[in-house]
Amino acid sequence: MGEATLLSDIGTEILIPICAVVGIAFAVVQWMLVSKVKLSTAASHDAKNGITDPLVEEEDGVADHSVVRKCADIQAAISEGATSFLLTEYQYVGIFMIAFAILIFLFLGSVEGFSTKSQPCTYDETKLCKPALATAVFSTIAFILGAITSVVSGFLGMKIATYANARTTLEARKGVGKAFIIAFRSGAVMGFLLAANGLLVLYIAINLFKLYYGDDWEGLFESITGYGLGGSSMALFGRVGGGIYTKAADVGADLVGKVEQNIPEDDPRNPAVIADNVGDNVGDIAGMGSDLFGSYAESSCAALVVASISSFGINHDLTAMLYPLLISSIGILVCLLTTLFATDFFEVKVVKEIEPALKKQLIISTILMTAGIAIVSWIGLPSSFTIYNFGEQKVVKSWQLFLCVAVGLWAGLIIGFITEYFTSNAYSPVQDVADSCRTGAATNVIFGLALGYKSVIIPIFAIAISIFVSFSFAAMYGIAVAALGMLSTIATGLAIDAYGPISDNAGGIAEMAGMSHSIRERTDALDAAGNTTAAIGKGFAIGSAALVSLALFGAFVSRAGISTVDVLTPKVFIGLIVGAMLPYWFSAMTMKSVGSAALKMVEEVRRQFKTIPGLMEGTAKPDYATCVKISTDASLKEMIPPGALVMLTPLIVGIFFGVETLSGVLAGALVSGVQIAISASNTGGAWDNAKKYIEAGASEHARTLGPKGSDAHKAAVIGDTVGDPLKDTSGPSLNILIKLMAVESLVFAPFFAVHGGLLFKIF
Amino acid sequence: MGEATLLSDIGTEILIPICAVVGIAFAVVQWMLVSKVKLSTAASHDAKNGITDPLVEEEDGVADHSVVRKCADIQAAISEGATSFLLTEYQYVGIFMIAFAILIFLFLGSVEGFSTKSQPCTYDETKLCKPALATAVFSTIAFILGAITSVVSGFLGMKIATYANARTTLEARKGVGKAFIIAFRSGAVMGFLLAANGLLVLYIAINLFKLYYGDDWEGLFESITGYGLGGSSMALFGRVGGGIYTKAADVGADLVGKVEQNIPEDDPRNPAVIADNVGDNVGDIAGMGSDLFGSYAESSCAALVVASISSFGINHDLTAMLYPLLISSIGILVCLLTTLFATDFFEVKVVKEIEPALKKQLIISTILMTAGIAIVSWIGLPSSFTIYNFGEQKVVKSWQLFLCVAVGLWAGLIIGFITEYFTSNAYSPVQDVADSCRTGAATNVIFGLALGYKSVIIPIFAIAISIFVSFSFAAMYGIAVAALGMLSTIATGLAIDAYGPISDNAGGIAEMAGMSHSIRERTDALDAAGNTTAAIGKGFAIGSAALVSLALFGAFVSRAGISTVDVLTPKVFIGLIVGAMLPYWFSAMTMKSVGSAALKMVEEVRRQFKTIPGLMEGTAKPDYATCVKISTDASLKEMIPPGALVMLTPLIVGIFFGVETLSGVLAGALVSGVQIAISASNTGGAWDNAKKYIEAGASEHARTLGPKGSDAHKAAVIGDTVGDPLKDTSGPSLNILIKLMAVESLVFAPFFAVHGGLLFKIF
Repeated sequence: MGEATLLSDIGTEILIPICAVVGIAFAVVQWMLVSKVKLSTAASHDAKNGITDPLVEEEDGVADHSVVRKCADIQAAISEGATSFLLTEYQYVGIFMIAFAILIFLFLGSVEGFSTKSQPCTYDETKLCKPALATAVFSTIAFILGAITSVVSGFLGMKIATYANARTTLEARKGVGKAFIIAFRSGAVMGFLLAANGLLVLYIAINLFKLYYGDDWEGLFESITGYGLGGSSMALFGRVGGGIYTKAADVGADLVGKVEQNIPEDDPRNPAVIADNVGDNVGDIAGMGSDLFGSYAESSCAALVVASISSFGINHDLTAMLYPLLISSIGILVCLLTTLFATDFFEVKVVKEIEPALKKQLIISTILMTAGIAIVSWIGLPSSFTIYNFGEQKVVKSWQLFLCVAVGLWAGLIIGFITEYFTSNAYSPVQDVADSCRTGAATNVIFGLALGYKSVIIPIFAIAISIFVSFSFAAMYGIAVAALGMLSTIATGLAIDAYGPISDNAGGIAEMAGMSHSIRERTDALDAAGNTTAAIGKGFAIGSAALVSLALFGAFVSRAGISTVDVLTPKVFIGLIVGAMLPYWFSAMTMKSVGSAALKMVEEVRRQFKTIPGLMEGTAKPDYATCVKISTDASLKEMIPPGALVMLTPLIVGIFFGVETLSGVLAGALVSGVQIAISASNTGGAWDNAKKYIEAGASEHARTLGPKGSDAHKAAVIGDTVGDPLKDTSGPSLNILIKLMAVESLVFAPFFAVHGGLLFKIF
Repeated sequence: MGEATLLSDIGTEILIPICAVVGIAFAVVQWMLVSKVKLSTAASHDAKNGITDPLVEEEDGVADHSVVRKCADIQAAISEGATSFLLTEYQYVGIFMIAFAILIFLFLGSVEGFSTKSQPCTYDETKLCKPALATAVFSTIAFILGAITSVVSGFLGMKIATYANARTTLEARKGVGKAFIIAFRSGAVMGFLLAANGLLVLYIAINLFKLYYGDDWEGLFESITGYGLGGSSMALFGRVGGGIYTKAADVGADLVGKVEQNIPEDDPRNPAVIADNVGDNVGDIAGMGSDLFGSYAESSCAALVVASISSFGINHDLTAMLYPLLISSIGILVCLLTTLFATDFFEVKVVKEIEPALKKQLIISTILMTAGIAIVSWIGLPSSFTIYNFGEQKVVKSWQLFLCVAVGLWAGLIIGFITEYFTSNAYSPVQDVADSCRTGAATNVIFGLALGYKSVIIPIFAIAISIFVSFSFAAMYGIAVAALGMLSTIATGLAIDAYGPISDNAGGIAEMAGMSHSIRERTDALDAAGNTTAAIGKGFAIGSAALVSLALFGAFVSRAGISTVDVLTPKVFIGLIVGAMLPYWFSAMTMKSVGSAALKMVEEVRRQFKTIPGLMEGTAKPDYATCVKISTDASLKEMIPPGALVMLTPLIVGIFFGVETLSGVLAGALVSGVQIAISASNTGGAWDNAKKYIEAGASEHARTLGPKGSDAHKAAVIGDTVGDPLKDTSGPSLNILIKLMAVESLVFAPFFAVHGGLLFKIF
């Protein structure tokens, strides 16, 4: 028997749901604060009698009522477009998910021929475990649960964002600080809801499954991995579909509007402008929400499944077993405290304080969380225990596990900083890229690509060091908790991440509502910081995805019953090189999809400018709905092939080539995908901010390149457009690719171990 | 004792040098045929009395004497610039190579403390082998020999190309067929000289080393691997330095000339035009020559070192031992026959026959070579033998080895065809990219990148299948001979590859000499086919590099005394992920170098257009020399950091982290580098030909996009410019990166095995 933990099992069972509920309550409070900004003119009228921030203080001269009404209308249009797209998307994906759920049930059920008899356990053959059929049933349930939670996460995020964007615009009239607070609070609503919701559902699922499984924790946590698979599958389609949607609209709108017709971004005369703003919400918000929820679910599942065959599981030590959930629980409390630093303890007053404020969020949450991890490791773990390590049990001390989590957390911070350095226009890399626009678009693209490649170096070293430390201390379990460490501040990460697209939309609404130039300048400043935070968020997503997939990969190898993955065997090596190719194949599909959809959009926008009289003069309204439909149709059609590539590859490789080759594929896709994902996301972020750098003209150097409409600026716009699919479609989808293939392999591992490798069996 | 081979040892000793000499003689004959086109006006005058192709038949109306003189002058300027650059480059690199030679001697000598006593052999401890000091001395000699052979290969190639370019221009006056023959023959001179020279030097070195080593074949062939390292080190600097040179000049010339001043490519008024043409010769010709020589040397060395510890080496079966050299010998004869199909058996008469003629070269050489391999395998191998396989001896039949070589050969053909499909403007991928120029440069770049990513898929499957087949049949030896199979038609491959830059230069000379538009059209047609063949050549170089480095990697692992490279150990995995990052780091450096050098060039060209009165009108001559100097200085300075990254990484990793981590680095760099190299090279080739497609306007579709100067054409020029560093600097250097790190690890393996892994030893 293992040593007892300081925190009792009953304490754990109470602590986790409490933290989750606190998180949800905090999100509700933030939401109420955001909703104080009234959108309807009637409400706004009432507000003047009761609320402390009367709009009469506004600096802007535009007539109040008509502007508020315009903003409300635009917001309604965006929200309606986004809701309608997501619902259609979910219908399509729903069919796929049901088919896949059936597949899971059939494949896993067939492992022991759908027998209902108990079987010897996989890792301890002296004991009896529940039948494979039970694993099939519960994995399928967990899969569906994960998918639904992911849908809810994405949908809620989108709803909140479209609720907040016009409110941010209106607050921008009062100053940049007010607008910042609204945008940030809205981001926080999403961050806390997602983190708490993910934790709560997982906690409830474990407790419900335990009613059936009882003491068979091996089977219980094997089934729970379906939760991660469901979350990630949904996230894949969300990211890819949303990514294609948003970038087709964005690229299409920019190419005709900014380049050909020389009208500003988000100009209401541009027929694609609503589609573009809808895209921000379905791609950057809903997609990102699903993605990070998936990472969180998978790293929890990876840690749990390894723990279940370690001393925690063998000894039925519940508190230690649920250590991953305890980390996430404390994470919610830490992020809550961190948020107050941005919203209550300090105040952002001028533009140049925005980026430091967001950066401080990262630093504060990391420092507080380090203490949080120390406490959880102290009360939630025995001082010494054993961890399953490819067939052996490895002795680990609690301080070593603390270090594993901490190294992941701090690696996340380093990745965040490096990403900021390479994508913010406050530093020389982006300024160099902007400078290269002097000689045209070609040098801009060359410099941008080089920047993205270069930005990979330090994050990879950070990931490598985390892997080495956590792997050495606690094998796969160490990796899984390192990933959890990186994701433990997910609520804050999501808050600063969602803040970006909300500000972007706020700017769009200001432009469309015909508000003054100074409002647009404020939202642009918010948005520039948002580009950087979006890149940071992607950095976190990728870094954690690398760790998560390695942990899942390790769990898969254990479950599939192979003891080494030797590169110098032909089966593994061909997997490795083909796996390293998959991210390219996937990117080719998604980039081409964005390109083709954008071409269609361009033709439609051109057609409208040509055929609708008075459009350019602003006397006629464009046909927004057709553009929304083009984006919707293109993304629904085009998300299937890349989605199928990712979902089917592990199945095909596993069934025909077996688990060794599949191991190679997972390792290859992981090490190659991480690089492309980081470089694509940073290149795109840098181009976007190089353009904004020239537009803002805040320094002597920037002014020599601008103003808007100069040759250098035109070159910068081309770079920005190229970067759009890189940073918002291909790049961020790749981290789902590597995670999803790993978790899918893990879920199907029992099937592959029995029935896999058909081709090699035949020859 | 093994079964005897049909070919006696003495027969082998005679056959190999004979084939090499035949190859050299054939090259000389081709050279004489090229030199019949006279460049001096006096000679041209004589020629009219004696030669069968009098220039009076020319279709072109330009006065003969002045044009010939102009061509001769331009050629002299290009040749002089190229010679002077290469000599300066060799001086710089020479210092580095001497330092590295000393390092090799010291490191390898220190393995047994510079003892001069014989030691037990590594693989058979019952026998005595020569001391480690001897390995140190002979490895150093082999290294220097490889470096010198590489220098000679590159330099000769450049000399031939600059000798042929103006002659191709002059022949273009008689028709596209005549020009094609001259350009192709010149390519053949280079191809055969390189192949034969590489073979001959290796053969002589083996025989000389044997005078000392006698029956200690293990030591002999371990030392010989230095030859591969020398060849590849030189190739690295040649590729990177030449690549930066050529693209700085090209991008710089295009950005000001084509985009800003709206003058044609290669216009003599452009100050960077000579530098641009020099660049073609030092980058595409000398760099490519060194590169493929390096691949050839390394795959031979990899095969030899494995054979020496297999039954061939143990039984001292010379013919079977030299099987890799026999393959190359027959390859020369096969290529000789193949060349006649292009130059003598058939005749190219019209433009549209050019690409098929080149394609036929690939097909014919592959079919003939298959028979050649069968013969060599039949007479040069015992029907059954054993091959060293990570500590065991594996029984292999001669037909299995035949299949290993053949699978490599045919995989090369498939890679060639796929490359053609994705980069030739006769097929839909490039046409789609051209079409995307309709909506501007941004969509062009997006489509081009997507095309490059997509073009990776089938080549990777081809490589994976070759690896699986050859690995399964004959372990690392199988991989090495598969690489040799792919390279066995190197003479033909180099011929069609070198043909491209020669045609490119010919077009440049026609433009500069003020020849008529129809001449330029002919050379442009040659050049468009040349872009495709260049891409095919790069495809071969990358495919073979992948196989070569895997073989070297396998040999390294054996020599370093580790039996498995298990991805699921922290030491290996961190190597894998960091290794996969290295190609990005390297590309970031080289792309940025090209970008910065191009910026300098742009400024200089702009300065000249502004300050030299009469330049635009053609009344004043530009200052070509300053542009040549800018390219020279930039490339010499900028080639050091990427060169150092590649050369030092294996040393640092081996010394501080040890052989396991180094194995991971090699595998990671291999599987990630191959993908980037293929996609970069094909993306660049596709953009170049999309631009040419619009310019040529040969189809209804193409005419809707053109003509030159249209918006779509301008967008295509931007894509072409971005592609330049991708296809001619970063992409092709990457295959050297993966090969060089592997061969360097192999050479230093004895040192790492004894002294490596300091960091892990300390902690």
